[in-house]
Amino acid sequence: MTEVTSDKLGDKVVVLTGGIGGAKLVRGMIDAVAPEAVKAIVNTGDDFVHLGLKISPDIDTLLYTLADKANPILGWGRRDESWNFMAALKSLGGEDWFALGDGDLALHIIRTMKMAHGASLSSVTADFARAWGIAPTILPMSDDRVATELVTDEGLLSFQDYFVARRCQPAVRSIAFKGADTAAATPAVLAAIADPHARAIVIAPSNPFLSIDPILAVPGIREALAVAAVPIVAISPLVGGRAVKGPTDKLMTELGLAVNHATIARHYAGLIDAMLIDSDEPPGSFDGIVTARTNTLMQTLDDKIRVANAALALADSFGR
Amino acid sequence: MTEVTSDKLGDKVVVLTGGIGGAKLVRGMIDAVAPEAVKAIVNTGDDFVHLGLKISPDIDTLLYTLADKANPILGWGRRDESWNFMAALKSLGGEDWFALGDGDLALHIIRTMKMAHGASLSSVTADFARAWGIAPTILPMSDDRVATELVTDEGLLSFQDYFVARRCQPAVRSIAFKGADTAAATPAVLAAIADPHARAIVIAPSNPFLSIDPILAVPGIREALAVAAVPIVAISPLVGGRAVKGPTDKLMTELGLAVNHATIARHYAGLIDAMLIDSDEPPGSFDGIVTARTNTLMQTLDDKIRVANAALALADSFGR
Repeated sequence: MTEVTSDKLGDKVVVLTGGIGGAKLVRGMIDAVAPEAVKAIVNTGDDFVHLGLKISPDIDTLLYTLADKANPILGWGRRDESWNFMAALKSLGGEDWFALGDGDLALHIIRTMKMAHGASLSSVTADFARAWGIAPTILPMSDDRVATELVTDEGLLSFQDYFVARRCQPAVRSIAFKGADTAAATPAVLAAIADPHARAIVIAPSNPFLSIDPILAVPGIREALAVAAVPIVAISPLVGGRAVKGPTDKLMTELGLAVNHATIARHYAGLIDAMLIDSDEPPGSFDGIVTARTNTLMQTLDDKIRVANAALALADSFGR
Repeated sequence: MTEVTSDKLGDKVVVLTGGIGGAKLVRGMIDAVAPEAVKAIVNTGDDFVHLGLKISPDIDTLLYTLADKANPILGWGRRDESWNFMAALKSLGGEDWFALGDGDLALHIIRTMKMAHGASLSSVTADFARAWGIAPTILPMSDDRVATELVTDEGLLSFQDYFVARRCQPAVRSIAFKGADTAAATPAVLAAIADPHARAIVIAPSNPFLSIDPILAVPGIREALAVAAVPIVAISPLVGGRAVKGPTDKLMTELGLAVNHATIARHYAGLIDAMLIDSDEPPGSFDGIVTARTNTLMQTLDDKIRVANAALALADSFGR
């Protein structure tokens, strides 16, 4: 049993992530271990076709964040963006409820063209990462179409209708992932989860219901996590009893769930070994899920690295 | 025989046109008669699909010119344009030989989307004109695909490969209009040419071989012109023995043609009643085609109106 495991190989980390919050964790992770040691499995349930263009919001947030092109004020899109396309679109009576920056259009136009010629979302994403010198691996959860839909008090809404057009105002009754039953996880996603040499699998502090659940809904992914050889740690998205960004707390209330870490832990029960929670919270163990605490609010790069290291330390405590 | 013909109806003018030079004439024509009295039949032989987007350069030049959005320096695209899309495209390794401005993208993206849903180029063009308050009618020569191709000393080139990518450098042996044999002129185009109440049909000083010939290659258009009830006048594109813009003179030489008005007149022989030529040129009548002279260089708005009026006066001399 001689197994060659370099330090670098031993530090491989797999992150399940949505957009902005998860991207910050991935950013921290590449300093906590090494850029090429990080694989991000990304939610594509928010993906949609708008103006004929294929848009993958969470993947793009990862790309912009890891290429140091992200807009720190908006939390989405590119820094130093211009908006002349939107102005012209509006003047022509085009749909302007979803803002597309001028530079941002390049990703959507190239992706749409390449996929029209048969390329997979995975290969196009890899092309983008290569072009921008992004060392971590960005893996769409599936190359098949999975669309998050929300049953609300105003009827069935697609994710972007709910999230952007309606600014999360409708009350959510339930959430569905259209296409998930027939979608396939990519081989790269399943291989990343099954890698026995990884140090940890980390569920980012993304919205469990809107960003992580779509990933878990893809057949094979939950099963692969259940038999994974490495520790699995989730980071709770709640800070001070609220979501840092987005509708997590509002959504939890509407779904009849108590807005606390216990609910998050219960949501991931059977899947994770431990959960990292914010240090302002009372410590606790929920349904057999051990917790550790750190300040989980990620503002500076140091914050991101600290949270990443805390998640890894928690994973390490479960040995390998 | 009581026929109601208002002054406005009597001043209806039909212009056959390519891009920049023709657009200037159309701009002059709307002041010479009235905006709503002008119909422009526009070359679509330059149209192509780039990055998955349907681009109609000559139609767009008409739209920008008539909406007062044209870039006076470049001679194409929008004024006050930004280029962040191109920079992002280049950073991703995308094809950057054809410049697409950020605002300009709105036309291409909306057109591509609407046509993918079954709209015709004519209806999309009309939508754009309506949105921007353009009173003249902009009529694509056909809703079917006609592609100008050039047989050159470097092989067969598509129009944009020749015109933009290769900057008109290859020597042209012959020109073909792919798809023209099976294309149909739109009913609106044929009705405009057949309108017995029009004052004149004017062939703009566009490149006869690359901008006007594609229009004439569409089955039915040449035949309709041959039996048109109104005078047909061409404006020679040559000023001082050269083309004002573009490769007309270089092209004529390569095709073995003398670069003079007689060649232009001969090219349109059987089709036009008269030709307007630049006032620096010696006057003449070519193969039975009467000429009149004015300064045909259109720089100011006054120039454009003067050239339009000179073309109309020449047409008027043929009575109705």
